[in-house]
Amino acid sequence: MRIANVNDRAALVTGDTGSEVTVDLAEISEGRFGPVLADLYSNWEEFADWIRTVETADVASKGVALDRSALGAPSPTPRQVFAIGLNYRDHALEAGFDIPTALPPVFTKYVSSFSGPDSRVTIPTDGNVDWEAELVVVIGRTAHRISEANAWSHVAGLTVGQDVSERISQLRGPGAQFGLGKSFPGFSPQGPWLVTPDEFSDPDDLEVGCAVDDVEMQRSRTGNMIFPVSRLIADLSATVTLYPGDVVFTGTPAGVGVARDPQRFLKPGERLTTWIDGIGELHQQFVAEDGRRHG
Amino acid sequence: MRIANVNDRAALVTGDTGSEVTVDLAEISEGRFGPVLADLYSNWEEFADWIRTVETADVASKGVALDRSALGAPSPTPRQVFAIGLNYRDHALEAGFDIPTALPPVFTKYVSSFSGPDSRVTIPTDGNVDWEAELVVVIGRTAHRISEANAWSHVAGLTVGQDVSERISQLRGPGAQFGLGKSFPGFSPQGPWLVTPDEFSDPDDLEVGCAVDDVEMQRSRTGNMIFPVSRLIADLSATVTLYPGDVVFTGTPAGVGVARDPQRFLKPGERLTTWIDGIGELHQQFVAEDGRRHG
Repeated sequence: MRIANVNDRAALVTGDTGSEVTVDLAEISEGRFGPVLADLYSNWEEFADWIRTVETADVASKGVALDRSALGAPSPTPRQVFAIGLNYRDHALEAGFDIPTALPPVFTKYVSSFSGPDSRVTIPTDGNVDWEAELVVVIGRTAHRISEANAWSHVAGLTVGQDVSERISQLRGPGAQFGLGKSFPGFSPQGPWLVTPDEFSDPDDLEVGCAVDDVEMQRSRTGNMIFPVSRLIADLSATVTLYPGDVVFTGTPAGVGVARDPQRFLKPGERLTTWIDGIGELHQQFVAEDGRRHG
Repeated sequence: MRIANVNDRAALVTGDTGSEVTVDLAEISEGRFGPVLADLYSNWEEFADWIRTVETADVASKGVALDRSALGAPSPTPRQVFAIGLNYRDHALEAGFDIPTALPPVFTKYVSSFSGPDSRVTIPTDGNVDWEAELVVVIGRTAHRISEANAWSHVAGLTVGQDVSERISQLRGPGAQFGLGKSFPGFSPQGPWLVTPDEFSDPDDLEVGCAVDDVEMQRSRTGNMIFPVSRLIADLSATVTLYPGDVVFTGTPAGVGVARDPQRFLKPGERLTTWIDGIGELHQQFVAEDGRRHG
């Protein structure tokens, strides 16, 4: 099952690539589920039971052709946002760190940086703006002190995320500035939709990557994570309570611009494409601070 | 004006210390404001205009005697939580850092750690749990790229916070673990209520402190902040958008346990009292992991 945020209303996505249809969930459930995405996650188990009784072919006729410009982040109002640093061996090494043996650094991306899958992103003046393709997990069931074995049952689904990062402010000062450096407006695009774990033959091993214009910058598999999704959820839930709708950016593989020689950052006019196989793509168009496409 | 969270309903607080009365705002406004605290902050300006037309003496008769055990955090469901490190000169020095010249480190305290002013807090097994008395700001008007001169007009009010911190997990690993180490259950008590800035002769210079049982551990003035409230709001808003109800923990002065010689952490059975003059007190009773008062 695929769930999209269409103009801040929960929608079911059906149809093949290029001919997707979105079906308003509040409409087909006669108000029982949605329209608000947060309410859908708060009632995720009940919703998942109900949607299994619905014939997709029947409801598809009530849908409209997908309009990507109407898509928002699949979970646009999470109570908590977790972002994991150094969770791929090759990225930890390119960043100059040892391979983490305990839970890697956890920071937040502030929700004012969230956007849908297709967007224009402003490069802050004099900023060194970098890409980080990531698998994003959305929580579907409250989790506190749960085991790795039980972790996946607390996941509503997976989506594609970009942890866009301004490296100068991120790395400035004592203790650095991860939360702010990664939270400029538009720095957390997500989408195009949420895909439930049952849609994947192995939800722990998906190809993830990104390209700037037509040049591939990152390509790896989520199977290369040092701490896989189930371990992240178990370890986070050892401290905090994870709530329905909470968002976890799971870390990025090697290939970021700050670790290249020479370093390579995004320039106005460039287009960033981020993908995960079996989910879909994000498209970010970068522009200069004054709004011009070319700086 | 003082606003409290009474059983998750917005309430006006009237009366002198020891004889406070709380008045349900949804009741006296006939449903126009509240009962949800988040809705009050989202309509803060309209609410502030309205409350000025209300005669406190008239509504006090509709109130009930304050029940501190019913109090929650004044803004219990913020979209974003900011916590500032190293914002007092003497604390930066005791922590072994240079005095910040740009915005000090900003991290988050996850909202699952929030509680009201009076609570029992479990000390994680083998944890080194420390105190950090802090002024907490709640935002009352959306703020993006605002000036220091305009910052205070975006503040709904001030409250007392404790940035309780487990030092082992906080300082573990590459990049440390500020968000998680400071977000165990109950590690972010706040209250007892929100006080609007107009109630203080100088909202930029309030005495703040805490004591373990009867031993004073911290005492300073918010006038000693390196980055005062107006500068914090201006600097944060240069990157993110601050939303109504957002919470800012503004940093702690010297006197934390981890910087003492010998180091001193909280033990089961100890009681932490945190105060800010003109606002009120928090009371945290610490207990062992298994719930016993004495470990």
